[in-house]
Amino acid sequence: MVTYSPLRYAVGVDLGGTKIEMGVVDNRGTIHHRLRLQVEKGAENVQRQLVEGITQLLQQANTPVLGVGIGVAAQIERTTGTVIFAPNLNWHQVPLKSYLERMLKLPVHIDNDVRVITYGEWLYGAGKGCQHLVCLFIGTGIGSGVVINGELISGFSNTFGEVGHLSVDFKGPRCTCGNLGCMEAFAGGWGLAARAKELISQSPKELAQPLLALAEENGHIISAKLVVDAYHRGDKLAGQVIAQAKQALVIGCAGIVNVLNPQRLILGGGVVDGLPELVADVDQGVRQYALKAATNKLEVVVASLTKEAGVVGSAAMLFH
Amino acid sequence: MVTYSPLRYAVGVDLGGTKIEMGVVDNRGTIHHRLRLQVEKGAENVQRQLVEGITQLLQQANTPVLGVGIGVAAQIERTTGTVIFAPNLNWHQVPLKSYLERMLKLPVHIDNDVRVITYGEWLYGAGKGCQHLVCLFIGTGIGSGVVINGELISGFSNTFGEVGHLSVDFKGPRCTCGNLGCMEAFAGGWGLAARAKELISQSPKELAQPLLALAEENGHIISAKLVVDAYHRGDKLAGQVIAQAKQALVIGCAGIVNVLNPQRLILGGGVVDGLPELVADVDQGVRQYALKAATNKLEVVVASLTKEAGVVGSAAMLFH
Repeated sequence: MVTYSPLRYAVGVDLGGTKIEMGVVDNRGTIHHRLRLQVEKGAENVQRQLVEGITQLLQQANTPVLGVGIGVAAQIERTTGTVIFAPNLNWHQVPLKSYLERMLKLPVHIDNDVRVITYGEWLYGAGKGCQHLVCLFIGTGIGSGVVINGELISGFSNTFGEVGHLSVDFKGPRCTCGNLGCMEAFAGGWGLAARAKELISQSPKELAQPLLALAEENGHIISAKLVVDAYHRGDKLAGQVIAQAKQALVIGCAGIVNVLNPQRLILGGGVVDGLPELVADVDQGVRQYALKAATNKLEVVVASLTKEAGVVGSAAMLFH
Repeated sequence: MVTYSPLRYAVGVDLGGTKIEMGVVDNRGTIHHRLRLQVEKGAENVQRQLVEGITQLLQQANTPVLGVGIGVAAQIERTTGTVIFAPNLNWHQVPLKSYLERMLKLPVHIDNDVRVITYGEWLYGAGKGCQHLVCLFIGTGIGSGVVINGELISGFSNTFGEVGHLSVDFKGPRCTCGNLGCMEAFAGGWGLAARAKELISQSPKELAQPLLALAEENGHIISAKLVVDAYHRGDKLAGQVIAQAKQALVIGCAGIVNVLNPQRLILGGGVVDGLPELVADVDQGVRQYALKAATNKLEVVVASLTKEAGVVGSAAMLFH
């Protein structure tokens, strides 16, 4: 006999640097009503946008909700829900949770975007049914969300899982964080661009020229996308940058697996979208370099929610 | 008003490669009766030794105990308490827990030695009162025990916290585990010796000669102890090996702090005993290289139980 428990609903909000995506989501992970807004300037305006947008969605949905979940690319003070620092929004110390709870008269949960997406993947995506997982997101930087014993872990000061700043080269190049040879300094989006520029400056002209010519069409900007495109066209210098990034990522992931011993390692983010073979490379490489006892039953898979993960994952915080 | 709850007791056993230490321990971490045995050859003999020793201790103590805790340098199958592989004892697939429970008619808990020592440090030593800690033990290899949200973590396949095999050099020397540039390949006891031998083979005679002369007195064996002694006497080559080990350890610990976000990082083990300045070096280095949000309230301290940690920690498993 199949039993149907009644659906519950929550509002999920993905607050990005340029746009706000929101939706009314049920506890099976389906989005029922959606809204997309362009982010206005200033914290006060954005907070007003959030209140208006959520109110509009609730009117459309016309059903009780458990509350509002918000994912934001920021450092969050966990107990108060204050945004300590959001670089993309240029916010400092914005008491977002208390403001929204006062205005909406609903419980509001706020967490870091990567952790929120991990919630989504865990409950409704590639991490479904798993009690030990690491979601690794490789975009401009590299972040992760970590589930241990069926719990999303925050750590002592809410910075658990900063795997992008795991060094894979203790004599390596300085990272934006001040550390040396961080994984994201080789394999994150900004790292790909930085390593390409470095290699151009050290390489003979004939090796550097094709990539520089491509960059010229791109306003002389060496971006991660340019490096990945050049690599796909067979550019040699870009090939060296990508090969190094893959090796850094494989050895970094072997370390992650040795330390965090997950059942499933889920890979997502813009760099993985651009280089989808990374999933197979990491799968094979981790099995080669990490401890057998940690890889015997390990699964390495691609993230499955991608576009909707922020909205679904934010709402998921209310259901968990 | 101070209230005294009645003391409870358990037997703690530290099963090493050459000797067995055991004791009757109370739930405040005090050892009341002790016994030390030389390990005999063969799993059957050692199991008999354990039964006889524990029986003798229980007769001396003449008090009820909650059970027996055993720490062993081995890979343990968590649910069954079978020793999968203990390299020092040359044991494979020994069903230690079920054997001892049958013979002693008492509950028996078995875990990895490093995790057991972490229990001891957590409940009675340098980790007291802490809900988020990493105990890092730097001996021949490097191991760790990790407490998150007040729980000692095992991971999906009981290998959580293998930080010795976190690579700090993705183009580095091959480790005994097959990975490249593992932290213990630079800063563990065997790593110090291996790096010294490597450097000797690459160095001019006048740099290598003093260490080779010291080794001659030591049966031509370059050991970690020899390297540390030479370093303390001002030997240049040993100085280079130790400087590199310190940097690898600092950058490795910065990664551990970024990923595991502990409140307290506890350092212990033979290499720390030989180079006690490592604690201050790591403290300072981690604050320089790890994320501010992860180090603001971090404490880096030395392990406090050292000699008794195995016995006390094994018993602690029964009290927790």
